[in-house]
Amino acid sequence: MTTSKAHPDSVRGDPDKKTIALIDRIAREVRTSIENGKLPAVSFPIRGLSNVIYDRAKGYFELGGARKLRTLTMNTARSFAQTLRMMATSRAMLENDDFATKREVYYVSKNWGYCRFDEQAESDAIMDDIEALASLHGLSREQLRFYPESHGGSVAGRLTVVDRNPASGEIIEIDCAELGSGAYTIPRSVEHLGFLTNAQFVLAIETGGMFQRLNNHRFWDGANCIIVEMGGVPTRATRRFIRLLSDKQDLPVYCFVDCDPYGIANIYRTLKVGSGNAAHINRFFCVPRARFLGVTPQDIVDFGLEDATHPLDKTDIKRAEDALHNDPFIVAHPEWGAAINQLLQMGVRAEQQALAKWGLNYVIDEYLPQKLANQQSFLP
Amino acid sequence: MTTSKAHPDSVRGDPDKKTIALIDRIAREVRTSIENGKLPAVSFPIRGLSNVIYDRAKGYFELGGARKLRTLTMNTARSFAQTLRMMATSRAMLENDDFATKREVYYVSKNWGYCRFDEQAESDAIMDDIEALASLHGLSREQLRFYPESHGGSVAGRLTVVDRNPASGEIIEIDCAELGSGAYTIPRSVEHLGFLTNAQFVLAIETGGMFQRLNNHRFWDGANCIIVEMGGVPTRATRRFIRLLSDKQDLPVYCFVDCDPYGIANIYRTLKVGSGNAAHINRFFCVPRARFLGVTPQDIVDFGLEDATHPLDKTDIKRAEDALHNDPFIVAHPEWGAAINQLLQMGVRAEQQALAKWGLNYVIDEYLPQKLANQQSFLP
Repeated sequence: MTTSKAHPDSVRGDPDKKTIALIDRIAREVRTSIENGKLPAVSFPIRGLSNVIYDRAKGYFELGGARKLRTLTMNTARSFAQTLRMMATSRAMLENDDFATKREVYYVSKNWGYCRFDEQAESDAIMDDIEALASLHGLSREQLRFYPESHGGSVAGRLTVVDRNPASGEIIEIDCAELGSGAYTIPRSVEHLGFLTNAQFVLAIETGGMFQRLNNHRFWDGANCIIVEMGGVPTRATRRFIRLLSDKQDLPVYCFVDCDPYGIANIYRTLKVGSGNAAHINRFFCVPRARFLGVTPQDIVDFGLEDATHPLDKTDIKRAEDALHNDPFIVAHPEWGAAINQLLQMGVRAEQQALAKWGLNYVIDEYLPQKLANQQSFLP
Repeated sequence: MTTSKAHPDSVRGDPDKKTIALIDRIAREVRTSIENGKLPAVSFPIRGLSNVIYDRAKGYFELGGARKLRTLTMNTARSFAQTLRMMATSRAMLENDDFATKREVYYVSKNWGYCRFDEQAESDAIMDDIEALASLHGLSREQLRFYPESHGGSVAGRLTVVDRNPASGEIIEIDCAELGSGAYTIPRSVEHLGFLTNAQFVLAIETGGMFQRLNNHRFWDGANCIIVEMGGVPTRATRRFIRLLSDKQDLPVYCFVDCDPYGIANIYRTLKVGSGNAAHINRFFCVPRARFLGVTPQDIVDFGLEDATHPLDKTDIKRAEDALHNDPFIVAHPEWGAAINQLLQMGVRAEQQALAKWGLNYVIDEYLPQKLANQQSFLP
């Protein structure tokens, strides 16, 4: 790294204090109610699709104002206690700088006596409620120290990740240009990471095979970028990593996926604006600066891929029709309506690796340079 | 790294020459046949279960002696030509130090005119034949430069991976103890990697959540080991990476997975001896030095996990019965028969994260140290 746009943020501190303060405030309110002889209650946002809003200006699906009140009664005593114990678990992990997966939290409850969970589905639902509540205060599940089971994708290129030794607190710098044919695995929580980079953009790639090609041939070196392997619909950790990188380093994100309804309406749409059934987290995980580099339906024509396509099957067509009529993001962008209609008219889909038809490294020598030189053709 | 057991091997050279020599020899034989007015033919091993042998001494499933002859006739002209063109593609990639995924090879064929593949299943089958043939000469698919789509698992701990800059050839050392809360992603091909380590063993872990816990708490530091996340049944790259690490550095491999028939008969068994329907590759991918640390059925009793278990379902029971009666590896090891019978009698399974019942870090503070102090209890 020769230059950097910004110094990395400090790795702990404010978010933890804010999370502890939120938990303490809720606990205090419950206690005060009890001391005043009132039934304690905690108010949670409703997480269903019924309570989702898409605001084009904000650029992501978000929670509406609907709330549900969890009051302590004979019938709710157990779930009320479970909610408080789970918040206490979160607080203890914040104190100890520890974390737990959803599954671990379920097992931890086995020592809670009467309010132990019988099924992980129960503990997951309560965790989602707490997560939705915390999200109203700008805090994510990872900041509550509940980590996802699956880690993030792989990263390579012109980026130094600034982490710390979890044991000593000592700063560690990981140069993602110095990992050979391997790559950096995004950890399950990325809130504490800082970044040093002089890259011009982030390239988010659907398939592992394409990532390996661009990495082995050092595409990121000439193009001065960072490449991220999503491996299908990106995990929470991958989405949050790209978002933080984009925000902190003021970097645009270009998405390079298959040209099919899944690549467009699932992978890209989830990366950019989030998903409808997890609206309470989209504000943390969406990547508003994402744009769609390709493969676009027009690319199939422009790059002569017609004989390397596959016919759209029933699932593809249903997904495309759904997106055209029911997806607020697609509906809000006529360019996407036109592109998906073009795809339906052509009746075919093309994988990003179809470019290999013109030679294994055509994607590096021709396709990506041509696309990057014409960024106004990117879809929104 | 303060000391190392061995210097890394050189990163290219002999295997490539050997692969090119094999391809050239087959091509020459075909040409000689034609020049002598004979119908050319290539002999391939039969890849089905009918041609699999388990030799306890060797420790993996391997191909038997059955062969099929692909002769050039009117009916086979296309597949014969496809076979030769795919070998030529492999040779060109060896010359150019390039590689291709299965899917890319399929697309590359779109420029082969009459002998192009119509479906990827066709090109995959021919690639498997070539791979099986190469395996008889000690060469893997990766050495033919055909790479899998999925990469390997994550690695952290007391290991320096020695790779090269694919562009300049310059040596790159990646210290897996210096990746913070992140990890090293195993690339799709690992043949060229070297290792520097003073670790005492490799711990192969089933779940991402457990890997993150052991990594964040620097378990590998005190235990002086290397940890590898398998993420369920390990990919080819993960298996080959562990195998090379074990061979080159003379390291034992301890497997830490869920206590259920899937963890035992699928994940562990595949890691150790390979799988029945891919016998031609097991010699490269099996890890003969793998042993089963846990979670064992006896651990459920010894570590008081009874109330953190789940009942075995029908699939579990069927898988266990299959393993007891039909799996040559299990049948060859009475200790495994006893353990699986014990599991069936208890009627429950336990996940590795069930140890969190005793506290999130019980696994680090109690379980793993106790197990490691009593290695004769490991299952074979």
